[in-house]
Amino acid sequence: MYWAGVDIGGTKIAASIAADDAVILGTVRRATPPGADFSPVFEAAAAMVGELLAARGATLKELSGIGISCPGPLDLAAGSIVQVATTGWREVPVRRLFEERFGVPVRLENDANAAAYAEARAGAGRGCGTVVYLTVSTGIGGGICAGGRLLEGAHGFAGELGHVTVDPDGPPCPCGGRGCVQLYASGSSIARRVRELAAKAGPGGFLAGKKEVTAYDVECGVRAGDQLCAGVWDAAMRKLGIAVGILNQVLDPDLFVFGGGVSNAWDLMEGPVLASARRYCYTDTAHHIRLARAQLGGLVGTTGAILLARDLL
Amino acid sequence: MYWAGVDIGGTKIAASIAADDAVILGTVRRATPPGADFSPVFEAAAAMVGELLAARGATLKELSGIGISCPGPLDLAAGSIVQVATTGWREVPVRRLFEERFGVPVRLENDANAAAYAEARAGAGRGCGTVVYLTVSTGIGGGICAGGRLLEGAHGFAGELGHVTVDPDGPPCPCGGRGCVQLYASGSSIARRVRELAAKAGPGGFLAGKKEVTAYDVECGVRAGDQLCAGVWDAAMRKLGIAVGILNQVLDPDLFVFGGGVSNAWDLMEGPVLASARRYCYTDTAHHIRLARAQLGGLVGTTGAILLARDLL
Repeated sequence: MYWAGVDIGGTKIAASIAADDAVILGTVRRATPPGADFSPVFEAAAAMVGELLAARGATLKELSGIGISCPGPLDLAAGSIVQVATTGWREVPVRRLFEERFGVPVRLENDANAAAYAEARAGAGRGCGTVVYLTVSTGIGGGICAGGRLLEGAHGFAGELGHVTVDPDGPPCPCGGRGCVQLYASGSSIARRVRELAAKAGPGGFLAGKKEVTAYDVECGVRAGDQLCAGVWDAAMRKLGIAVGILNQVLDPDLFVFGGGVSNAWDLMEGPVLASARRYCYTDTAHHIRLARAQLGGLVGTTGAILLARDLL
Repeated sequence: MYWAGVDIGGTKIAASIAADDAVILGTVRRATPPGADFSPVFEAAAAMVGELLAARGATLKELSGIGISCPGPLDLAAGSIVQVATTGWREVPVRRLFEERFGVPVRLENDANAAAYAEARAGAGRGCGTVVYLTVSTGIGGGICAGGRLLEGAHGFAGELGHVTVDPDGPPCPCGGRGCVQLYASGSSIARRVRELAAKAGPGGFLAGKKEVTAYDVECGVRAGDQLCAGVWDAAMRKLGIAVGILNQVLDPDLFVFGGGVSNAWDLMEGPVLASARRYCYTDTAHHIRLARAQLGGLVGTTGAILLARDLL
């Protein structure tokens, strides 16, 4: 029997297939059909699941269930998308669509939680009791896995770690909160801060002549010894460390796992985040903090979806 | 069959007995024998369990297990006290002592976690999926119950919520962290801050002539319209609200439950804490925050100990 995992993102869809051991046997990827209408997205994803089964010479009767990872906010109880701001999808009954098409149980989970579950069960956190996962990318997302289970909270909002306040006197965040870690340490925030300071500093410097500045440009600036980039990077890692320190105090996890594009600069991230985190914890717990880079790369979404379907359906 | 719960504190010991439904049938209390030697404390507690059994006309054969609630830090895996600063107890194998005396399974848990479990299962949080418990007393303690289970973390330190950072630029805390909520909103911190400001303000005012100022005096000052007390109280509740906002963002609980002496001023606490908490959350989650006062009063420790023994042994 097989399990399918579908990772539906704003720009691409990935689908994988695995047997009961959740080791991925095949994966297909496709660009997400553009527009606010979810129907072509569903049709593309459904066709990809069909292709994967066909490639194994398997029929629908051999499919045990489907897991779906999707950006949110979602209504987990209803198995539906509430709204995805970047694509315009609204009130999509994702679980029902897949259940009606394939006649198997379907589980929907938000993308950061699915990734957290994948890393906790089959990635960097394999064997750990409690894992906190942070994806540091355009934004910052997260998920918490404790005792082998994802913490979803009362309304599906547990683990929204990008919006943990790290400066109560900080600026308002579009989320409605204030001083959220995402305002300082996400890729887009790092790039924006460098652009602001570079504009003030006037022409010249490492970034001179660049029209667009990305977090990766800032990383390169740090490596090249640019002071402006280094200052912004350090400040961002310090704020990320405050969030890690607070989360360590609340959850005492075995391991923090970092995914997302910014975490590719792991050698520039681990040290400063750890040093900052240790300042915001109990002495007894500070030396227990362990950080690791995510291991599952591009398969994290479909792996999480398959594991969640297999373990929780 | 019966379960015994023993709540060992620095000043008093309480023991209760219950049948499998965990409804408490009898409780005895005694002053904690003073000194750093744990032996007389153990003997007193053991005698109290014997008395409770005798009062039910029951023998040791009818005892299923014993739960013990104790201040920490504890080594939960070993079932032992690491150190209790206020009494001087060090490296006490509590679980083994009780197991050898009574010949039944014994579970040891720290007092804040036991109280959290009691309120989540049998108190204000009964029926909730996720409950965050905060005891606001001399210090601030906490515990987290999710999906019917206590979150203990990798090293038994999960839920040490008094040391959540609410001001990264705040003063160092004796715990080793910085800007911990306990530095602002515990009973002793509220009283200390009023004493400091009253000393600066000079003679006169609501607290004139008082040698010692307690958090209860500050509460009375707030009710009497004293500006100094009201200012300190509001600032403390605002900081407590920041911690609640952060915890809501991380855990999305059904309910926050507040115990401890300071929470007796619930009418002065609920409104300002909720208003502050809502400023530090996702808009989607801010209106879900619910606060409640603890319900189990003086039986919270033994109730938690009995429930933990019954559910987890």
